[in-house]
Parts: sequence; structure tokens; C-alpha cells
Amino acid sequence: MNNFEFKNPTKLIFGRGQIVRIADEIPVGSRVMMTYGGGSIFKNGIYDQVKAALKDFQVVEFGGIEANPEYDTLVRAVHICREQQIDYLLAVGGGSVIDGTKFIAAAIHYPGASLWDILVRQENNRGLQTVPFGTVLTLPATGSEMNCGAVISRRELKEKFPFSLPNNYPQFSVLDPTACFSLPKRQLVNGIVDTFVHVMEQYLTYPVNAMIQDRFSEGILQTLVEIGPEILRRQTPDYDLMANFMLSATFGLNGLIAIGVPEDWASHMIGHELTALHGLDHGVTLAVVFPALIDVMRAEKKEKMLQYGERVWNITSGSEDERLDAVVKATRDFFESLGVKTRLSDYGIGTDTIRTITERFTQRGTRLGEHGTVLPETVGRILNNAL
Amino acid sequence: MNNFEFKNPTKLIFGRGQIVRIADEIPVGSRVMMTYGGGSIFKNGIYDQVKAALKDFQVVEFGGIEANPEYDTLVRAVHICREQQIDYLLAVGGGSVIDGTKFIAAAIHYPGASLWDILVRQENNRGLQTVPFGTVLTLPATGSEMNCGAVISRRELKEKFPFSLPNNYPQFSVLDPTACFSLPKRQLVNGIVDTFVHVMEQYLTYPVNAMIQDRFSEGILQTLVEIGPEILRRQTPDYDLMANFMLSATFGLNGLIAIGVPEDWASHMIGHELTALHGLDHGVTLAVVFPALIDVMRAEKKEKMLQYGERVWNITSGSEDERLDAVVKATRDFFESLGVKTRLSDYGIGTDTIRTITERFTQRGTRLGEHGTVLPETVGRILNNAL
Repeated sequence: MNNFEFKNPTKLIFGRGQIVRIADEIPVGSRVMMTYGGGSIFKNGIYDQVKAALKDFQVVEFGGIEANPEYDTLVRAVHICREQQIDYLLAVGGGSVIDGTKFIAAAIHYPGASLWDILVRQENNRGLQTVPFGTVLTLPATGSEMNCGAVISRRELKEKFPFSLPNNYPQFSVLDPTACFSLPKRQLVNGIVDTFVHVMEQYLTYPVNAMIQDRFSEGILQTLVEIGPEILRRQTPDYDLMANFMLSATFGLNGLIAIGVPEDWASHMIGHELTALHGLDHGVTLAVVFPALIDVMRAEKKEKMLQYGERVWNITSGSEDERLDAVVKATRDFFESLGVKTRLSDYGIGTDTIRTITERFTQRGTRLGEHGTVLPETVGRILNNAL
Repeated sequence: MNNFEFKNPTKLIFGRGQIVRIADEIPVGSRVMMTYGGGSIFKNGIYDQVKAALKDFQVVEFGGIEANPEYDTLVRAVHICREQQIDYLLAVGGGSVIDGTKFIAAAIHYPGASLWDILVRQENNRGLQTVPFGTVLTLPATGSEMNCGAVISRRELKEKFPFSLPNNYPQFSVLDPTACFSLPKRQLVNGIVDTFVHVMEQYLTYPVNAMIQDRFSEGILQTLVEIGPEILRRQTPDYDLMANFMLSATFGLNGLIAIGVPEDWASHMIGHELTALHGLDHGVTLAVVFPALIDVMRAEKKEKMLQYGERVWNITSGSEDERLDAVVKATRDFFESLGVKTRLSDYGIGTDTIRTITERFTQRGTRLGEHGTVLPETVGRILNNAL
């Protein structure tokens, strides 16, 4: 097991009817900016619940934070916060709204001339004073409700940068499964795939005798395998299924299963390119890239792939190569069973795009994977495998 | 799944050679009391490592905190802290030293006349100002290094009280597996059994569709089953085995697996009586009581017992009663395989003691278990089953 440090101070407030409790978590007298996205919270009653809970606070609303939250949008929010002397933020939404709110929290008191430096000069961010914030989660997927990271896009520059700050955890996050009952199927599918691959990026590398972390990761994977198809099959949302999905997503990327183990993240980095070039949903890109990646990287990932196959899919017979084949197939079949296509050709993407991506990675000198052995040429092989 | 709240702000600093890092965690200029137990830290080098790390701080040492930390001892420490204006505590030891240090932390600024009230008038403890503290763990077992609870004994009154305060989490805990390399076998066995039963008290109740929590609990149990006998078999301690044992103990009682589920704790309450009356080690009492308890309570615990049997012991065939029998036997055999006897008669304890305990519970009106259905009469049946 590798050495590690772990601290996660976010308070989870979980369950039916818990949105009302945000009033006890935000300091009395706070001037609150409530952030949200495209407005689904107006249709499902969440907006009304949050506003009722905030009735004793001065609240400025800021809606319209996009999927892949846009820098220009967030900068507008920052200016409003400064004008209105906002001292608490409340994100109501999914990963994009929460990520965007993390940027706002870091930017309000940022002393530099350009807020873009928060993303591109992160070495200067140590000790940055952030504004406290909480969240009300409406879309389980990214784990942003219990971590200190965020990904911000700037379409003008065609850039998408992650950043994280140790003091930028949500102070609290309300997870009410009923707040997710009106999610469209496409977002549920993306959330399930995203969560599954988050776990995989931290689990499917090479063994370091991290038995507890392996069991926790496998526990989340097994749960997603059990509940994923069932969540999608239901006409009427089931409370416990949604509750377990929410916990899967939160614990899948809150740092817990990453303690003391190597991490990969190559599937995410390759997938980001497919989103940038073709606008594919993030979850879709992972469903395409991940099975192909473990197929191509099977030599390096062999031990953990066999362990995953045995513990999650009960794949125990056949030669080693047969079992590895079965592991790739079971993973691909799982994504397909959720209704997401897993081949580039399903999306009209071919060798031109593969060439563009490998060239981009070559120019940047990118080396991905837990060993840094996923070279641009390897990325080409992975994407060809995914055709 | 039940509603829950979860927050755990302790920073884990894990790995070989990490004790030196306590110097970065304690505020510069702090006046530190370093607490410890019977002095094993002088023999295994931990004392020297801690003192070297603390070289730039003013340090007062307070040793001699007993197993089942004694109120009178801790009160002496509190007086020294007040005289010396101590503003940071560092516990170096196992659960007893850490528990005792939690009491000291709560007592230094306690405004009441009697410190005993911290334990017996806990309703007054809300908002109590505690002194910050960190820990260096030398004995994995209680999970106290990452929770806010403690158990304090007062031998004069033959009392033993638990208390917990939401602001009494360690600020940091250093978990260096090599710090546990010199532990005697008896303490390792007790730690393994204690951890196993901690998990069980939170897991083996009745199903509430808490799939993630179940998988995490089962993951810790599976790990203990794998590593327990192996840890004891080794002549030379193995780093990764100890690392996984430490994580099992920490995550076994840091609140994580308790979220959204019912809890039992009857085995602990019955076991406490055996310690009080006969001085049995806490771990030993659990190894005696727990198998008998699940045997007697099989009707109420049936669903989770069958799940536990299948997932941890691969018990899948036979009638329901046969499988429940096999579950009890597998659990008892596991404890025996660690070298701990699981029958009251192995310790010369008989029906007189059973009568004494049931009478005590009758006088107190005690009702134990996740349903409150473990009545004094039931306790008698459990202890008779354990004869």
C-alpha cells in the first residue's frame, strides 16, 4: 500500500425531506448566492424547497450555469458576488453547477488581475481564501458534492481545465434521493457510466495490496451492476435504488477509494477529446473508451482485471486470455445494457478523429495511465479498438 | 435506507516514516501535552520518533494512562494541563490513550464544578469548548483515531461510561504500520476480534437496502478473515498485512459503515459486564458473546445472517436453519482460529455470573439490540448458549 493523506470535511445530509436543513447549516445573516443550471429545478419542485428553506437569508440567484461550466458565465457570477458582498454560496444542481460554484468560491477574493490564472497558474493558488459553500445535489455522477475538485471550460479558447483546492470542499451537501426522481434517462445513464468509470480509474491499475480499498471499489461496482439496469427499467423511481446510486457516485470520487493506490484517468483524458471534437456526452465517451482501453492495456492491468472479473462478474474459468476477453466483454455489455452504444462507429466517428487526437497528444507530449505508458500511439490503438 | 448525517473531519496521515509530519500539523508555538500509556513506546522507538518530531514545541509528558482509561488518572492530567496552559494534546498509543485524551480535551475548559459531569450529564456538553488534539496510533482496534467517542472508567464507582462530542475528533491521526510491529500477539488478537465485532454491530441487524454500506462492511469482514490468521502466523511482521489491519480498524468505527443503517451493540454491552465482573479482555468477551448472540437472535437477524454467510463465508447450500447454523459455526471457528477461546466455561465462568448479569440488566431495565428486544431474559439465554 502506498503512503497517503486523507481528509474530507464535507458534511453529508442524506435523505427524504432534508433540503429544509440547509437553513441550519448556513451562518445566520449570510448573504447567499444560490447557483443553478438550466432550470430543471423549477419543474421538479427543488427550487421552491430551497427558496423556502432560505427564507430568512438575503439571496441572490444566479442560474444558467451550463453543462461543462463556462468560464465567461462564472466570471459574471463572480462580479455579482463582489458587488453584492456575497459571503456564502449554495449550488443547487449536478456536477457542473457544483464545479462552477467551486470556481466562483475561489474567485471572489482572488487577488490576481485575471481569474483565468486560477486555472492556468494553479501553483499560485496555495493559501487562496475561498468563500464557503454548500450544495443540494440533483444529479448523481461526478462526486463533486464531496470533493474539492472542479473542471471549468472556456469555449473561446477551446480549453477545459481541472483545478482543486484543499479548502474548497462543500461545507455540506444535501443528498435527497427524491430530488433525482425526475431525471431523464439519458442523464441517469451518463451518471451510472461516469460513476462506474470513476471507480475504475482508481481501481483497475496494478495491485499494491490495498485490500480494503479494493473491496470498497468492488462494492461500488457490484452495486452499480445490480442497480443500474433496474433504475432505468423502472417507470416509477424507487427511493432505495436512487439512494444507493447517490452514495455510489459520492463515494466513487470523494477520495476514499483513492487512498494509497495508483490512479489511471487515461479514459477520462481520451474521452475529453471526443467531447471537445464531437460534443459527445462525457458518460458516452467513457463507455466507448474504457472497454477498448482495458482491452489494449491488458498486459499491464492483467492482475486487477482478473480480480475484477472474478469478484464483480464471477469470471473464474478459462485461460487467462479467455478470462481477460470475458472481462472486456462483460464491461462493454454492461454499458450496452444501459442503452449506451460503445463503438465510435455508432456515433459516426472514424479514423480521421483518431488521427486528430493522436496528433494533439503528440504535440502536447501526453503520456497517460498509471505507468505513464499510454503514449499517443497507444491512444491510437485504443481508439482503433473502439471503432 | 435510513436518513443520516455524516461528517468526519479527521486527517489521516498514513504510512511508513510519517510520524515526523506531526510537526507540520500542530500550530507553531503550541504548548503540547503528549499522552501515552504503559510505556511500550519507549521500547519500540515510537517515543524517540515523536519527541524528535516535537523538538520545536514545548512539551509536557503524561504517561501511565491505563487500559480502560481511569477517570482519576485523567483528572490529574487535566490539572497539569490547566497549570501549564496546554493548548494542544498529542495521544501516542491505542484506543485507551486516545479515549483518555479525548476526555482531557473536553475537560480542560469545562466550566462545571465536577469533571465527572462530562460523562454523567452529557446533555450539558453541547457547545463545550474542547482543546484540539492529534494522535499517533500504535494499536489498531477501537477506531478512536478517527471518531469522536470515548469510553472512560471510574474504578472507585465500578462505572464505565461512553461519551461523544461532535467537536472532539482528532485533528489528525498518524497511522504508521511499522509502529504496530512490536505488538504482542494477545493485543493483535483482541484488535482483530474487536474490529470484526465493531463491523458486525453495524452490519448484522436487519436489511434496509443499504447496499453500499453492506458491501463496505462485508469488505472489511472479508479482509479480516483473510489477514487475521496470517498476521498472527508471521514471525516477522508484514507491512501490507498490518496496513490493511489498520485501515480495517479505522474504517470499522469511523462512522462510515453506520450511515443510514440500524445498529445493535448488544454484544458490547453484555461483554462489558464480563469485563467488569471477571476482568476478561474486551476482545475476548466479544468472541464469547457474539457467536452466541447471533445464534439466539437468528430469527430477527436471519436475512442479514444469510447474506453475511453467503458473501463472507460462501455458505450457500442447505436449509435455512442449516445455513444459519453454519454461519454461527464459521464465526465461532474464525475467532478460535485466532487462538481465542469462545466459551464461558473456557474462562471458568458459569451460571452464577449469568444470574448476576441478568439481575443487573433487570434492575437497570436494560433492553438491547437493534429492535430493543434483547431483554434481560434474552441475555440469560445468550450467555447460557455461550457456556
